[in-house]
Amino acid sequence: MRALILTGVKQPLELMDRTPAELAPGEVIVELRIAALNRRDYWITQGMYPGIEPPVILGSDGAGVVAVCGEGVDSSWIGREVIINPGLNWGSNESAQADSFSILGLPRDGTFATHVSIPATQLHEKPGHLSWEEAAALPLAGVTAHRALFAQGGLRTGESVLITGIGGGVATMALQMAVASGADVWVTSSSLDKIERAKGIGAKGGFLYTENDWTKRFRGDAGAANLIVDSAGGAGYKSLIDVAAPGGRIVNYGATTGPPESIDLFKVFWKQLRLQGSTMGSPSDFTAMMKLVTHHKIRPLIDRVIPLEQGNEAVAMMKSSPQFGKIVLAIS
Amino acid sequence: MRALILTGVKQPLELMDRTPAELAPGEVIVELRIAALNRRDYWITQGMYPGIEPPVILGSDGAGVVAVCGEGVDSSWIGREVIINPGLNWGSNESAQADSFSILGLPRDGTFATHVSIPATQLHEKPGHLSWEEAAALPLAGVTAHRALFAQGGLRTGESVLITGIGGGVATMALQMAVASGADVWVTSSSLDKIERAKGIGAKGGFLYTENDWTKRFRGDAGAANLIVDSAGGAGYKSLIDVAAPGGRIVNYGATTGPPESIDLFKVFWKQLRLQGSTMGSPSDFTAMMKLVTHHKIRPLIDRVIPLEQGNEAVAMMKSSPQFGKIVLAIS
Repeated sequence: MRALILTGVKQPLELMDRTPAELAPGEVIVELRIAALNRRDYWITQGMYPGIEPPVILGSDGAGVVAVCGEGVDSSWIGREVIINPGLNWGSNESAQADSFSILGLPRDGTFATHVSIPATQLHEKPGHLSWEEAAALPLAGVTAHRALFAQGGLRTGESVLITGIGGGVATMALQMAVASGADVWVTSSSLDKIERAKGIGAKGGFLYTENDWTKRFRGDAGAANLIVDSAGGAGYKSLIDVAAPGGRIVNYGATTGPPESIDLFKVFWKQLRLQGSTMGSPSDFTAMMKLVTHHKIRPLIDRVIPLEQGNEAVAMMKSSPQFGKIVLAIS
Repeated sequence: MRALILTGVKQPLELMDRTPAELAPGEVIVELRIAALNRRDYWITQGMYPGIEPPVILGSDGAGVVAVCGEGVDSSWIGREVIINPGLNWGSNESAQADSFSILGLPRDGTFATHVSIPATQLHEKPGHLSWEEAAALPLAGVTAHRALFAQGGLRTGESVLITGIGGGVATMALQMAVASGADVWVTSSSLDKIERAKGIGAKGGFLYTENDWTKRFRGDAGAANLIVDSAGGAGYKSLIDVAAPGGRIVNYGATTGPPESIDLFKVFWKQLRLQGSTMGSPSDFTAMMKLVTHHKIRPLIDRVIPLEQGNEAVAMMKSSPQFGKIVLAIS
């Protein structure tokens, strides 16, 4: 097999031939068609993640065809088109992952490779309406967006949703899922172009968070947000508390601009707000996400397709996030 | 009727005779036996509350006997022993109070009086196991504690609960309700005496939050808290995020020491924490609270009984909170 391997932090990934690891009972080997990138991959290359032990094959997202079944796996899997749930060993508590939880692509070898071994319990049938690119783009962003909106955000039909920093994989998936679920969805961005593209896939409108008075205009156009999905935190978090409706929820699956400045707890308790942390998702979240995507024929947005050989360029793009939708790697 | 009246902020309340207001359709007059104090009463006397328009009779909590029924009220109420739900016009949204919501005792004349008029829909039968003092102590603290624990905190049997700053009416009610519901309950205080008293009513143990390493000792003794009920906020809030279990909830019904310092959103999303604001409760919360109190024969703690005539001394005690349980006013 060929794989893009992290041999040390702050070094380019190296494309190498590698002998596949011994297949454990219950595992399969998937011959990958497409892998997809996540910001996590960039952070790992920069050493900004716990437990980095090179050499390791990065990559959490992938779709392909089952090539080999290990001991105890039903051989009817062979030849089937699958996508992989990259969340391993969530544990039995739906509210939070166990200490044993890990994500494919560190420490376990991931999907930036021609082949990946994975427990068969992580496999899901590739939905028929998705291309290989779309199927590979779905798992990590899809389950993160779904958990943020539903299990943690408690989204109900007809509610008003605000998704901040539209453009990344999770944010665009959340936009598509919320629109499909009958919500009125608004977005923020620092780019008018991204706001226009968000409107093209169902957003009611958008606001430049770089403009000081965007919350006023949000109130005028949208009223208040029942659910806000944010991954920025930082100085802008204060505005989210202001535009949240009474009884509203603000779900964070990241804090890319750092922790928020002091939070006005008086507003939080008087408005009965819920500030909810969220990350990835349980096997139940993944199954529910697959069902929603299949039912509504949601197709993840692909920003660009890059050959595996140029994987380092793809990883570098995750730093500044110019994309709208997912960047994927063509394996073969 | 005689009443303790706020005639201006930062002035002593004045005990005066007053002509009762005209009884509106749907309302009753309750002849009060006992009223109870809340910190809200102190804040109002200090002008630290919106919409203060003297003269007004303060007091949110009261229990007594129905003396007069207005038009449209079933006359079988007459002579019945009742407690009053002080939350008016919550609205139709269980998640948060409507703008129309108000609390008895401002702007509507309250319970520091021999008589109070109130819509009959606010009446609840006084549970048989409660004394008049206990019945009057129950409403505002009881519904606030119940909503914090259940509707907002999602308490489940067998969970571990931490109640900070034990001693006040809401905190002691929350302790009693959580213990009755089968939770392992821990407390914090700045007073060893209050911790001992909390253990006397079912707390597993307590910690002096004035000691820097209390979170370490909490981890050693209690592990982690699934649910934390706090009304302090401020610098100590950081520690609550540290001792919360993965998937845990931190419910705030106040922020007496001000807003927290910057919140570590990374811990919040990685631990999938829920930071939940809460205040008072809906009519459903009140009914559920009454059911729990009746079923488990919970008796609110009475710190002391003060005659209505000495109401100003009672209000002054709400400033420094030396009490353990509620301070009540004997009306007659």
